[in-house]
Amino acid sequence: MAEPAGQLLADRAVAEDAAERTLAILDTTTVTLVGVREARLVSDAVGPRRYLHAGPPLSLDELPGPLRGALVGALLLEGEAADRAEAARILDGGELELAPCQEAAAGGAIAGVVSPSMPVVLVESSRGNRAFSPLNEGLGNALRFGANSEATLRRLRDVVAPVLDRAAACADVDLTEIQAEALRRGDEGHNRTVAAGAVLVARLASWAIRTAPDRAAAADALEDARCNPHFFNPFSIAAAKAIADAAHGIPGSPIVTGAGGNGLRFGIRVSGLGERWFTAPAPTSRPMLFEGFSPEDAQPMLGDSPLIETIGLGGCALSAAPAVCSYVGGAPADLSRIVSEVRAIAAGVSSRFLIPFESFAGTPLGLDVTRVAVTGIEPVTTTGLAHRRAGVGQVGAGLTRLPVEPFADAARALERSSTVTEEGGRT
Amino acid sequence: MAEPAGQLLADRAVAEDAAERTLAILDTTTVTLVGVREARLVSDAVGPRRYLHAGPPLSLDELPGPLRGALVGALLLEGEAADRAEAARILDGGELELAPCQEAAAGGAIAGVVSPSMPVVLVESSRGNRAFSPLNEGLGNALRFGANSEATLRRLRDVVAPVLDRAAACADVDLTEIQAEALRRGDEGHNRTVAAGAVLVARLASWAIRTAPDRAAAADALEDARCNPHFFNPFSIAAAKAIADAAHGIPGSPIVTGAGGNGLRFGIRVSGLGERWFTAPAPTSRPMLFEGFSPEDAQPMLGDSPLIETIGLGGCALSAAPAVCSYVGGAPADLSRIVSEVRAIAAGVSSRFLIPFESFAGTPLGLDVTRVAVTGIEPVTTTGLAHRRAGVGQVGAGLTRLPVEPFADAARALERSSTVTEEGGRT
Repeated sequence: MAEPAGQLLADRAVAEDAAERTLAILDTTTVTLVGVREARLVSDAVGPRRYLHAGPPLSLDELPGPLRGALVGALLLEGEAADRAEAARILDGGELELAPCQEAAAGGAIAGVVSPSMPVVLVESSRGNRAFSPLNEGLGNALRFGANSEATLRRLRDVVAPVLDRAAACADVDLTEIQAEALRRGDEGHNRTVAAGAVLVARLASWAIRTAPDRAAAADALEDARCNPHFFNPFSIAAAKAIADAAHGIPGSPIVTGAGGNGLRFGIRVSGLGERWFTAPAPTSRPMLFEGFSPEDAQPMLGDSPLIETIGLGGCALSAAPAVCSYVGGAPADLSRIVSEVRAIAAGVSSRFLIPFESFAGTPLGLDVTRVAVTGIEPVTTTGLAHRRAGVGQVGAGLTRLPVEPFADAARALERSSTVTEEGGRT
Repeated sequence: MAEPAGQLLADRAVAEDAAERTLAILDTTTVTLVGVREARLVSDAVGPRRYLHAGPPLSLDELPGPLRGALVGALLLEGEAADRAEAARILDGGELELAPCQEAAAGGAIAGVVSPSMPVVLVESSRGNRAFSPLNEGLGNALRFGANSEATLRRLRDVVAPVLDRAAACADVDLTEIQAEALRRGDEGHNRTVAAGAVLVARLASWAIRTAPDRAAAADALEDARCNPHFFNPFSIAAAKAIADAAHGIPGSPIVTGAGGNGLRFGIRVSGLGERWFTAPAPTSRPMLFEGFSPEDAQPMLGDSPLIETIGLGGCALSAAPAVCSYVGGAPADLSRIVSEVRAIAAGVSSRFLIPFESFAGTPLGLDVTRVAVTGIEPVTTTGLAHRRAGVGQVGAGLTRLPVEPFADAARALERSSTVTEEGGRT
């Protein structure tokens, strides 16, 4: 039996080894695009009255406005409710089952609602696991921000998805390669994905033409994708989720493999800590609001897009994308300062996601709950902001500091679990 | 009559006013894409035995290897010669008329040869003038580098141009807007134009689909454009030429409105100095050579692409594009140093071409021959390098320092012309 000090060293060695193994997976797993299909065809976790949502679990009686708005929209879209009143009765009567996207190999932007007929981006990692994320509907009064008007629903029923699906099946798109190249083109891969979007549209174009049912469908789908500055966002989230899932479940690993908000609570999951969520009240952003909205209008953090930070993009790559200053504020030099803070809480450095203006240094990779707990440095993400009230939509965007609490809780749980394992070993 | 000192001040005031007016045109003229057509349909300067070439004028008996190779290729392409021997006889017999692209509202990369059936990118400025540049043929054994094999000629006869032409006619593409956005996406607009290329391919895609003779033609053309990293280059050159021509001809202006090399001589033209070329021996690059070539293989500077520097891109925007380090050498910080040197010889700053990592400072705009003469700072451009021998092709790429001599000669000529005008006024 080891002495306490020896035991501590042995524990640290186990944790470091686990972290290294997790990092290697986060750093080397590649992701290819499979298709863009209705969620019901992709996952058993989605059914007629079984929808997914962003962030940690929550119950129907605590729904924040935008999530409620999105669920009403989804019930209308699916024909489960004839009007808003009936949809409200379904929600108030507890007649809908809800589960977190991240427990179903998915990640959803903002409200993150996935209902059966919604088109989702489906990807597969080089380790064989799949992940998905709802296709981005465009800006403004989108369902993910809680809007549910006729115009919102019409967008979800359009013909873009089938065209993209056929093109994707032929094009053999390596999404991680596009994400890496996009850093050389001024994206950070989370809020700014315009360069990646242009690459993907150009990549799919010739196949869309060859495989679409008719020319107009191909032209409309490509033009729709091109004009949406967040077209690539779900491709980025799905790729991140696939990589994060591949790196999940390594005993003793302190590396974050899940993160997201449901508007009430922000939560993380950790590679070495199984299915458990560690949560804290959802943070609010330092918001850049659209004209006509005040800070009180914004719902605290919603969305699974911080999954993107788990693979070394987004807040970890901010300084690759000075153009984000226009919507998160500050100057390019501030972005470099933020990234260097993140380096202090990351277990490693990406070998493929490189920041041109930091002499092609790799982005910080592998948020380490122990390092967050010890340093007290708040991880960073960039998110869109939804109006608090159901049915309104987006009010702005901002840089969000994530609370330290869930990371510290996870670090303690990891310590306890290593002790428990050790004690288990002793009996 | 003014005293000599007063006269000097008056001259300087005239020059500064002329520079300001030139700068305003360089800074605000926008350029739209008109089409991609055969040169014979675009310009009277091109005819059956009347071809264009890059750089200042030269005669048939002094052709450098790559230009000779390109002209042989063009004569074969046009059916003027049945084989290389016959083409050589035409050249040696003086049976071909040559004129500089830049004297015919054109700009051509590397050899810059334009013959009647070659597809050219045609653009129009917001001031009504038009300009054109040969469509880029792709990498490797391209005619612009002096290659003239069957494969080279086959590429020039393909079906890409008609598809692009029809799409361009509908798409209403503002090229200067794409160039500005591309700086936020890591291009410098001259040697690195991949981000602009992706934007343009995505922009043309839906129109290509709607207007192409058949689906396969549209798909092939878009895929060909997407896979060519220099697809955007002639769009960039043509836009620069249109803007530079709009800014040409302002009496007393010391601003450069033309620049290029013919492999023997490098030359510039100046807004206030009419059609005259000021030349010096063509410089050689600090080359990054392809495998298997030595520095002696490279022909000294060829090509009109330094036109791009006249509008504040390329060497003026190097620090927007750290990825160029991979083929011009050095580190990102070196690029910023080069741009700050260029600031010392530029009359102004672009208000639309902004460098993200210099806190969105405008690029240096308007190379001022007087400032070059006074400071002795060599302007910078980045070019591809052709093999000295006809028929070989590209051997590398590099950062090229332009000789001060033509700028100094032009500064002296400007001084003299102002004196002459004044004396003329006195008589």
